[in-house]
Amino acid sequence: MDIVVQKYGGSSVKDLEKIKEVAKRIKERKQTGVKLVVVVSAMGNTTDKLLSMAYGLSDNPRPRELDVLMSTGEQVSIALLSIALNDIGCKARSFTGQQIGLMTEGFHTKSKISDIDASVIYEELDKDNVVIVAGFQGINNNNEITTLGRGGSDTTAVALAAKLGALCEIYTDVDGIYTIDPGLYPAARKLEYISYEEMMEMASLGAGVMHPRSIEIGHNYKVPIYVALNTGDRPGTFIRESDEIMEKTVITGLAVDNNDAMVTVNDFPYTVQSVAQLFKGLAEKHINVDMISQTTPVGDRISVSFTIPKNDLPAALESVKQLQEKAGPFTIETDTDIAKLSVVGMGMKTQPGVAARMFSVLAENDVKIKIITTSEIRISCTIDPKDQAKAVSALAKEFDL
Amino acid sequence: MDIVVQKYGGSSVKDLEKIKEVAKRIKERKQTGVKLVVVVSAMGNTTDKLLSMAYGLSDNPRPRELDVLMSTGEQVSIALLSIALNDIGCKARSFTGQQIGLMTEGFHTKSKISDIDASVIYEELDKDNVVIVAGFQGINNNNEITTLGRGGSDTTAVALAAKLGALCEIYTDVDGIYTIDPGLYPAARKLEYISYEEMMEMASLGAGVMHPRSIEIGHNYKVPIYVALNTGDRPGTFIRESDEIMEKTVITGLAVDNNDAMVTVNDFPYTVQSVAQLFKGLAEKHINVDMISQTTPVGDRISVSFTIPKNDLPAALESVKQLQEKAGPFTIETDTDIAKLSVVGMGMKTQPGVAARMFSVLAENDVKIKIITTSEIRISCTIDPKDQAKAVSALAKEFDL
Repeated sequence: MDIVVQKYGGSSVKDLEKIKEVAKRIKERKQTGVKLVVVVSAMGNTTDKLLSMAYGLSDNPRPRELDVLMSTGEQVSIALLSIALNDIGCKARSFTGQQIGLMTEGFHTKSKISDIDASVIYEELDKDNVVIVAGFQGINNNNEITTLGRGGSDTTAVALAAKLGALCEIYTDVDGIYTIDPGLYPAARKLEYISYEEMMEMASLGAGVMHPRSIEIGHNYKVPIYVALNTGDRPGTFIRESDEIMEKTVITGLAVDNNDAMVTVNDFPYTVQSVAQLFKGLAEKHINVDMISQTTPVGDRISVSFTIPKNDLPAALESVKQLQEKAGPFTIETDTDIAKLSVVGMGMKTQPGVAARMFSVLAENDVKIKIITTSEIRISCTIDPKDQAKAVSALAKEFDL
Repeated sequence: MDIVVQKYGGSSVKDLEKIKEVAKRIKERKQTGVKLVVVVSAMGNTTDKLLSMAYGLSDNPRPRELDVLMSTGEQVSIALLSIALNDIGCKARSFTGQQIGLMTEGFHTKSKISDIDASVIYEELDKDNVVIVAGFQGINNNNEITTLGRGGSDTTAVALAAKLGALCEIYTDVDGIYTIDPGLYPAARKLEYISYEEMMEMASLGAGVMHPRSIEIGHNYKVPIYVALNTGDRPGTFIRESDEIMEKTVITGLAVDNNDAMVTVNDFPYTVQSVAQLFKGLAEKHINVDMISQTTPVGDRISVSFTIPKNDLPAALESVKQLQEKAGPFTIETDTDIAKLSVVGMGMKTQPGVAARMFSVLAENDVKIKIITTSEIRISCTIDPKDQAKAVSALAKEFDL
């Protein structure tokens, strides 16, 4: 029999009324004859409330204890959802990460799933129970409670679907994946399907409904993922392997990110080691560099520009300045007033000239580009935020988004 | 090195300020050179809040799921207390019932401890950590979360102390055990010590700060228990094995209970089976009968009076009426307007005439007694509540309470 893993996020279970609605939907789905595993997040803003208590006691709470604390949020949700389901005559049992043997490795507050013992789940499904699983949490080899970091409940759901060979349905407060964030471009189209690769790029660019890591797991284990509104009354978007039709679409989506800052180092010494050292320093501070652009050398000097999350700017500058002491004098410029525009599409792999079309459109509209990077299925450039609306609209028309 | 198990109740950790105070006290105690295991309850009224959510979803929530839900309360407390302790430089680690292998048996929401695996605790104590344990919770042989029912955190603390051969300190919002509830008799004395047996009787009579079950465990394993105010600035009361001095005190305490109702059946058939059937019916409904008084038969008929908690009166009457159909006609009277007065003391075992002294004093003060029961170290009688103050005061003077 078919197994379906459903995931309901925090806004879907934010109060008792919402929990009752979700229970009703689960019961209806169960009655269609599928076996159901349901992953739930903490209710509404529970996680924030718990964190604010922890930070009310310490500026630097132990990650191990934060995990013990935060994991209670999902535990409350699974118990309540199971109570609601049993109340309407739908047999259900709740399970914590520990109870389904969701093993993790790595650091507290950002652990990674290493294995799941599906035997408990199969046993419960055989008894015709809906299995309610706490998202976001697991245990490590020391039997310590761990959490999976941002998007953790999505990761739990996709990993469970991978283990069980199931379809994974992600219910959330948006009704699917759009070509462009409808808040930025109201005429954006909802996609019927998108490939894992495109979705990963979109998610990394902050445009995704899901966390990139959960999509990566979906990709690795070929888990079909369906993202839809938690009320279920509108069709959502499938994330799946790309096929011929998808590959004919040049550009699937456009993402805009306003949370990056750009750092440029000028008169930087051009040696074999210098650029490597620059980015090694940033990596050591766990700063995620997205775009990098390097000029051809003038003499033994070059310019390097890169973008990073705005939050990381102080740490990045500290790292670069340390290098200044070693590598000799060079200048540093920062620009926090940038918009990053990215187009993503599987079609780029096979159809050349996408970058040219993009830059022509921008040029026709008098939009100046600061730096550019490309990957196999993505082209990104940074522009002045005041040109953003004009650029989005022009690219949407060009690529039929 | 000496191990001490401390327990802090819900009012001791009801907000972040209180948690910081408790952390400070634990650190100070640790610095005296003892190894500390600390059992914590859920913050303030957390358990009530969780229960009200559950009953907002179902009139009859599954006990298994209630346990999953309620156990989160203590899990929040242990994480926060551990965060607070580490913040002030006192190494601490939190553990759920599952993590210290606190095994239980019996029913959900009222399980009993069957075993504790102390190895994790010893390991942590050896690393000089304060071990913070979630009270009230454990797991059963199916790896399901269970809770221990009323007074569960006390039970956890005493059971841990028994396992570790430790002193058990119960910190609460009263400053010890009094001869009489000071709310009823302000001149009551605080006891320096009380025997397990006396404390169990007092606790069963609703006069105790602790649940009878936790004291029973203390008694069985000879765990010295110290009950004191959570601020630590006033001496509390030791609960321990009785000695000669304690046995010389005729009466240690007086308890008053206004939560009982009395049921009297008149013209009840006097057969070998009938009385047994009466109480078997009540036991099947889990109704706790306290006092029983039976008249000598008149012909083949007797009168039987018994007291039960007021809450159980409807269920008790239902049970008795069912018997009416089988055993033939008899009349039923109920009296919810009674006060139960009990005196408790180890000295009764060896010193006769206590009952006579008690009844003389009550007679001199014109207090009418309805029914009487006695055990080895306790005499109880029910009286009219309007005589209660007069009776308490007279008995306190007679027995120097």
